[in-house]
Amino acid sequence: MTWKLTKSEIDNQSLLLDESLLSIGNGYLGVRGNFEEGYKSTYSSIRGTYINAFHDETEINYGEKLHAFPEIQQKILNVIDAQRINIYFDDEQFSLFEGEVLQLERNLHMDAGYVDRIIHWKSAKGKEVKIHFKRVISFVTKELFAIEVKIVPLNNIQIVKIVSIVDGNVSNFVDKNDPRVASGHARRLHIAEVRKEKKLSIVKNITYATKLEVACVTSSSIDIAAYEYASKITDSSVEETYVCNGNEPIQFTKYNVYTDTLRHGDAIIDKALAIQQQLKDTSFDELLLEQKDYLNNFWHHADVKIGGDVALQEGIRFNLYQLLQSVGKDPVSNIAAKGLSGEGYEGHYFWDTEIYIFPVFLMTNPEMAKNLLVQRYSILDSAKSRAKEMGHKKGALFPWRTITGPESSAFFPAGTAQYHISADIAYSYIQYYLVTQDEAFLKDYMAELLFETARLWVDVGHMKDGLFRIDSVTGPDEYTCIVNNNYYTNVMAKHNLLWAVKAYNLLKEKDSKLLNQLSDKLNLSELELSEWTDAGEKMYLPYDEQYKINAQDDSFLQKDLWDLENTPPDKFPLLLNYHPLTLYRYQVCKQADTVLAHFLLEDEQDFETMNNSYNYYEQITTHDSSLSSCIFSVMASKLGDKAKAYEYFRKTARLDLENTHGNTKDGLHMANMGGTWLAIVYGFAGLRVKERGLSLAPSLPDHWDSLEFHLQYQNRTLNIKMERSIVTYSLIKGNNLTISHKGKSIDLKIGENIEMAI
Amino acid sequence: MTWKLTKSEIDNQSLLLDESLLSIGNGYLGVRGNFEEGYKSTYSSIRGTYINAFHDETEINYGEKLHAFPEIQQKILNVIDAQRINIYFDDEQFSLFEGEVLQLERNLHMDAGYVDRIIHWKSAKGKEVKIHFKRVISFVTKELFAIEVKIVPLNNIQIVKIVSIVDGNVSNFVDKNDPRVASGHARRLHIAEVRKEKKLSIVKNITYATKLEVACVTSSSIDIAAYEYASKITDSSVEETYVCNGNEPIQFTKYNVYTDTLRHGDAIIDKALAIQQQLKDTSFDELLLEQKDYLNNFWHHADVKIGGDVALQEGIRFNLYQLLQSVGKDPVSNIAAKGLSGEGYEGHYFWDTEIYIFPVFLMTNPEMAKNLLVQRYSILDSAKSRAKEMGHKKGALFPWRTITGPESSAFFPAGTAQYHISADIAYSYIQYYLVTQDEAFLKDYMAELLFETARLWVDVGHMKDGLFRIDSVTGPDEYTCIVNNNYYTNVMAKHNLLWAVKAYNLLKEKDSKLLNQLSDKLNLSELELSEWTDAGEKMYLPYDEQYKINAQDDSFLQKDLWDLENTPPDKFPLLLNYHPLTLYRYQVCKQADTVLAHFLLEDEQDFETMNNSYNYYEQITTHDSSLSSCIFSVMASKLGDKAKAYEYFRKTARLDLENTHGNTKDGLHMANMGGTWLAIVYGFAGLRVKERGLSLAPSLPDHWDSLEFHLQYQNRTLNIKMERSIVTYSLIKGNNLTISHKGKSIDLKIGENIEMAI
Repeated sequence: MTWKLTKSEIDNQSLLLDESLLSIGNGYLGVRGNFEEGYKSTYSSIRGTYINAFHDETEINYGEKLHAFPEIQQKILNVIDAQRINIYFDDEQFSLFEGEVLQLERNLHMDAGYVDRIIHWKSAKGKEVKIHFKRVISFVTKELFAIEVKIVPLNNIQIVKIVSIVDGNVSNFVDKNDPRVASGHARRLHIAEVRKEKKLSIVKNITYATKLEVACVTSSSIDIAAYEYASKITDSSVEETYVCNGNEPIQFTKYNVYTDTLRHGDAIIDKALAIQQQLKDTSFDELLLEQKDYLNNFWHHADVKIGGDVALQEGIRFNLYQLLQSVGKDPVSNIAAKGLSGEGYEGHYFWDTEIYIFPVFLMTNPEMAKNLLVQRYSILDSAKSRAKEMGHKKGALFPWRTITGPESSAFFPAGTAQYHISADIAYSYIQYYLVTQDEAFLKDYMAELLFETARLWVDVGHMKDGLFRIDSVTGPDEYTCIVNNNYYTNVMAKHNLLWAVKAYNLLKEKDSKLLNQLSDKLNLSELELSEWTDAGEKMYLPYDEQYKINAQDDSFLQKDLWDLENTPPDKFPLLLNYHPLTLYRYQVCKQADTVLAHFLLEDEQDFETMNNSYNYYEQITTHDSSLSSCIFSVMASKLGDKAKAYEYFRKTARLDLENTHGNTKDGLHMANMGGTWLAIVYGFAGLRVKERGLSLAPSLPDHWDSLEFHLQYQNRTLNIKMERSIVTYSLIKGNNLTISHKGKSIDLKIGENIEMAI
Repeated sequence: MTWKLTKSEIDNQSLLLDESLLSIGNGYLGVRGNFEEGYKSTYSSIRGTYINAFHDETEINYGEKLHAFPEIQQKILNVIDAQRINIYFDDEQFSLFEGEVLQLERNLHMDAGYVDRIIHWKSAKGKEVKIHFKRVISFVTKELFAIEVKIVPLNNIQIVKIVSIVDGNVSNFVDKNDPRVASGHARRLHIAEVRKEKKLSIVKNITYATKLEVACVTSSSIDIAAYEYASKITDSSVEETYVCNGNEPIQFTKYNVYTDTLRHGDAIIDKALAIQQQLKDTSFDELLLEQKDYLNNFWHHADVKIGGDVALQEGIRFNLYQLLQSVGKDPVSNIAAKGLSGEGYEGHYFWDTEIYIFPVFLMTNPEMAKNLLVQRYSILDSAKSRAKEMGHKKGALFPWRTITGPESSAFFPAGTAQYHISADIAYSYIQYYLVTQDEAFLKDYMAELLFETARLWVDVGHMKDGLFRIDSVTGPDEYTCIVNNNYYTNVMAKHNLLWAVKAYNLLKEKDSKLLNQLSDKLNLSELELSEWTDAGEKMYLPYDEQYKINAQDDSFLQKDLWDLENTPPDKFPLLLNYHPLTLYRYQVCKQADTVLAHFLLEDEQDFETMNNSYNYYEQITTHDSSLSSCIFSVMASKLGDKAKAYEYFRKTARLDLENTHGNTKDGLHMANMGGTWLAIVYGFAGLRVKERGLSLAPSLPDHWDSLEFHLQYQNRTLNIKMERSIVTYSLIKGNNLTISHKGKSIDLKIGENIEMAI
């Protein structure tokens, strides 16, 4: 059954992992899979509730602070805890760490959009009960996190007491020895208000520095006629107590509505109260029905069906489901590296969005994809300021990691130096335009963003001996920082520059008046256009004659080879065991770099060179980054190595489910989740979208019977079904379309299935 | 009068500067030139008393902490303040910021070893007095800081009250926006004891983390018969009050004895009391006489006499005097970048010692020079641990900045990455051996240190295409960090490697038993020797065919040129105005790098190439580092450009006196002070010491009439006097010696002056 992820362990390691795996969310709100009643006191837990982009700013400390080092760091906050429900049977408190657990099953229902926990428990004194928790974060009412608890007393229980708490006393998790988790600054929320209004619990918090506010307004109810109710307000929490007879089943529900000042204006409590008012006649079952409808629609577009491999089917579904749960759907939010499933990377947005995640939404739900791009556009001014601060005369330098715009990376060699993010964002804009032909987007966002990023490249690089060179940047591979002429960066910058010129000409053709306005606004001259053309056309792309590959950068191939064979397994990931200087000294890669460039811009190089590059870099890549294996899979498909493509794909599909990177407790690896889909759709199916249209080059893994998925393309819906020797293309919606199958044009019409040999 | 530095301004800027310029010290203890009675409350001041190497450890914070980043930072501490003397005339407190200053003169007596302050003052109410402060830190009793105050009431004053305080409530200075000054962690001393024992004031402090202790035991006395005495003990200080009749002159003295647990065992108060006991019959004038004797001897060896330029004469004397005041003379201390004159660079020892300061002592006072090397040897184990921590299989990697051994640099690109410091230390060992032929030194220290540093280079570098390459290090120029094959590093490593082989063979010849013991201890095989030879002989030294210069590193000459001409003056030093990535992107140097290598190892390159290098790098060097101009001066002399040599020398000689770098308030630039001497002795006089002996190549600056100095060399004292057209060599002490004058051998004998044409 691949629509359901089931877990039942209660050792601490499993619980920490399952907190991430069983997290729920909707792109706005996320709650980790903690137990409502908590764990044993000796267990560690990252108990968390997050609102996308809801953050505070903390000072960054440096032993030596140099010019233009960011002074503050944004950080997603663990907000008001509304999970807490304690249950007492007579004088015993329910806990899975006491008494006897006769049954425990935890399920994530990916088709229905909720998690549940089914328990059969006997207390130390022999009281026996069944308890069924369900929790849902609504895709329809984004502010709502609802919990239902059904309690069935099975033997001689006098009294059932339910204590439901909304707690504003919350902190973030810290682990100062892991650079991938935040250090310090655990508590960033003051308690601003704690009260009740009629039967509603109200807690409001305010951040220390940004003064953002978050409120949680909670209604609770119980379905039995006779019970005693009491409530208590402390400095930081509201506790409600229901005391019931223990002789009948009880259904308890708790609707928590979260609002914040980023999205709901200043009167966030009023807003939450209004939402509670709207919800007052909606039962928990009705919520689940709405949720099911939403997911039916999502899966209709996004599902990937693998015939013949249940584990990988589960993997890809899980990954797609978590992407949906995490992706921001309003203009203030993007998708954090860990989604809303944990605090790793502090809720920051990275290039992960553009290169690994955006394509999934672009090809399955272009509106959601567009939102990601619009959010980036909203921080263009920040990016322009940052470019100035970094000494550039003009242009936009996007922050390596940020929430609302300011650069939040505290280690510039593997942070700010990754200038490629500006070209990555430009690349995603171009892909969006190619897939949607959205002229309004070109006019409203794309032209300006491409112009400002192109300006950056002209300012960063310089012409020498007739070639345009870009020095002192870091490419995707963080094991070699601050280099000259990183192939990835240069080729992506070239694409950026030449597309800025194309965008200019497109706009001139389609709306020259607007172009003039924009040129005036940006103080843009046609002279700059010729600089872009020149820099793009003369871009230096390092190539090594000996190996007949593109060198990762000017000096990479001169370095010594890391002795991977004799590096003990416990020394991986290398970044946790070696000083960066040591890593920089060797030919050793954390992740795909040149190989990624070959995937994204395959027309820049011939097949043979890409093949050589792949073979060369594969030998020296550790895949210590979760952004690596998926790209090697895509490129192995491209280069015809089906076995490798499948092997790398396997590593990505269940990375979090099997916790292969060991840190899933800090949150799910969103980019890898997108990468799984890339490995399937860009890899096995060979999808590419270029100016000349959409093409596919399917090749089904030998282990599978079939592979089927849908694509959205220029207002059309396509279905692609790959079987062992045949692929069937169907146009489900939209006008006739010509696509390319392995270089051969085929015409798709509604109602006609076209079968082609693989 | 060039033995005296005189100052008299009392605006805040001047006072801050003069605190450094008029600081006193003896290599163990240092006190800044603050006013005993303090300044106006609106003034800022860095009131400081420092003990060389007396430090605490503070945590280094990183936004992103990666593997092997140092976790703690050592930091010199501002210790117990014994400067305070408040003086009252009837109901008015003496202050140079009240009433009328009829005369003020502050003098640093470089021939006599003290500072004084001569005051004629009229209070607001018309009370008139002369006050004369003298303060001395003894070169004979290193623990002693003594103050004398002579007060001459000139008119109708009833009562003179003197309040003398020893205050344990002290903090360090902070400026979080200047990376060259420490950030945070101001208070690092607890007060452990405050009491009186008989008439002695006792204050003891203990550091927060290192638990080092410092005590100040103070005796005070007054030379008049009738006075009232009272004392007060607070939580943190001892105050003594003398109330005297205002009708006679008063002489007040305060002897402060500082001891610490680094040097005086655990019973530091007892030790200080014993020193007080020894001093009890020594008058202040007797102290001054001892001091004068010591300095006579110092100047006899170290003085440099410039005929015809008073300002530069003052400059070089000031610099030599401050070096003497700052250099550690016991095995736990070295010389801090700012000496004991301020808190800049946190009292750390850098390569400044070996390359800029050590040669001064080596050629004028070899015993003091040796102490610096022995201190480095004492941290060899730390350096070996650090090499391991940095992923090296063996060898010693000296910390970029430290006090007692642990790496204290918090920004590795311009810190730990400067691997050259290990070769610099080796270079100073070799120079010491060449100058002294000290075989015991070879056996006790030098062989082991050269072996361990040679091992580092073999592990850091790698052979490729028959050449030995060193990747991923930073050379002296901090405007281009983390590069491959920095010419300076490679050529210094070559020297290190080949001299390790020489040291091995020397030891084999002189004491093969000891060599065997050492080899056993270090697990050293002859196989390693051949690795050292191989790496040294095949060291890759980048050379550019186009410019016919040595390239600073593999990629340096490919980069864009910084537009120095159009950089506004207020943007210098560049490091305070541009992000490091921006600086790395251009050909722009903070300081001499390749040019320094040409000076230190001139036989590695032909004259023409060195000349080309000089001319090339001069165009792109900002001299933002105070370690730069002196080297350009030396090399200009070498290359025959007398005008340039003089111009660069001028910039170094009065750098602190004229505060040309704007930060002398944080302490004096010790390396530059040594550099002044280098510019004279290695520059104008052309001194070199090589295996084939001592050589000179004098060339007197056109502005000067003469230049005279002494050298210590292999148990001999030489006098060199340069005049316009002639140089006179005299052997003052020691056996006959053959030296080289401009390539021509000359034989020196006691009592014979040899005159040669310049």
